Amino acid sequence: MTLSKRIPILLLRLLALGAAVSATVVMFTSHDSAEVFNMKFEAKYTNSPTFKYFILMNAIASVYTLILIFFPSKSSYGHFILVSDLIMALLLDSSISACVAIGDVGKNGNSHAGWLPICGQVPKFCDHVRGALIAGFVAAVAYFIILLYSLHNVMNLFALNT
Amino acid sequence: MTLSKRIPILLLRLLALGAAVSATVVMFTSHDSAEVFNMKFEAKYTNSPTFKYFILMNAIASVYTLILIFFPSKSSYGHFILVSDLIMALLLDSSISACVAIGDVGKNGNSHAGWLPICGQVPKFCDHVRGALIAGFVAAVAYFIILLYSLHNVMNLFALNT
Repeated sequence: MTLSKRIPILLLRLLALGAAVSATVVMFTSHDSAEVFNMKFEAKYTNSPTFKYFILMNAIASVYTLILIFFPSKSSYGHFILVSDLIMALLLDSSISACVAIGDVGKNGNSHAGWLPICGQVPKFCDHVRGALIAGFVAAVAYFIILLYSLHNVMNLFALNT
Repeated sequence: MTLSKRIPILLLRLLALGAAVSATVVMFTSHDSAEVFNMKFEAKYTNSPTFKYFILMNAIASVYTLILIFFPSKSSYGHFILVSDLIMALLLDSSISACVAIGDVGKNGNSHAGWLPICGQVPKFCDHVRGALIAGFVAAVAYFIILLYSLHNVMNLFALNT
């Protein structure tokens, strides 16, 4: 791959790295507490397996992206990197979707199931989750564009060579 | 693409079609009701935006797959189909992840947020959701393998031509 084709990928990976690290840190530090009927109610990421999954996936994305930025990119690894980028995009997509679903119940509740919204009691926690979701979304979009760009390059090279 | 390379993709698309249609139908027909404290409680897919999203995505996947099975595959559309397969895999992945997150709250509840599990009251509904999730998962895996196989073919052709 020529240098002019590597620079956009590098920039996208830097964006993904910043976003995934932010998502991990913001979700990890999300914390708020409230007193309801004299019972102290503490909201933090460990309260839900979905938030733990979100942190794990964004931490994996951060480490993976960091390694790839410093990885000496050999074209012989192209196939492997394309597949691992695809897996990374799917994992980020999955973690955000799961968190949005739980975040929606936290914000709006679900009257049919009798689940009350909690964001009124712990607004700081919900703000953090929202911030983390936005950062995670940016990382996922960066990976989606990396995939599109890589596919485009591969297909164009293929078209040129046939 | 030669016929021998097209057959595995066709078989995977048939699998994805069957799975996505099953997921749509099973989720759409999920229904159960219970009486709690003389209040009738009805569980169906319309109770949650996540379940509606799941049905929409699986219906889109069904129609998309059906079109591609009958689509006269010209290699000039290869790039476009690879990208739309990628988007389909991401959408299916997203809909399953969101549903698993909500399904987990439905099954186990979340004591921190005060959300009680509902599967004890409406077991038939939860069984349907579980079945739909398994079918949706099969469709998503089929699309993941289609992507891997297409990428493998593209990269191999590229390697042969350089």
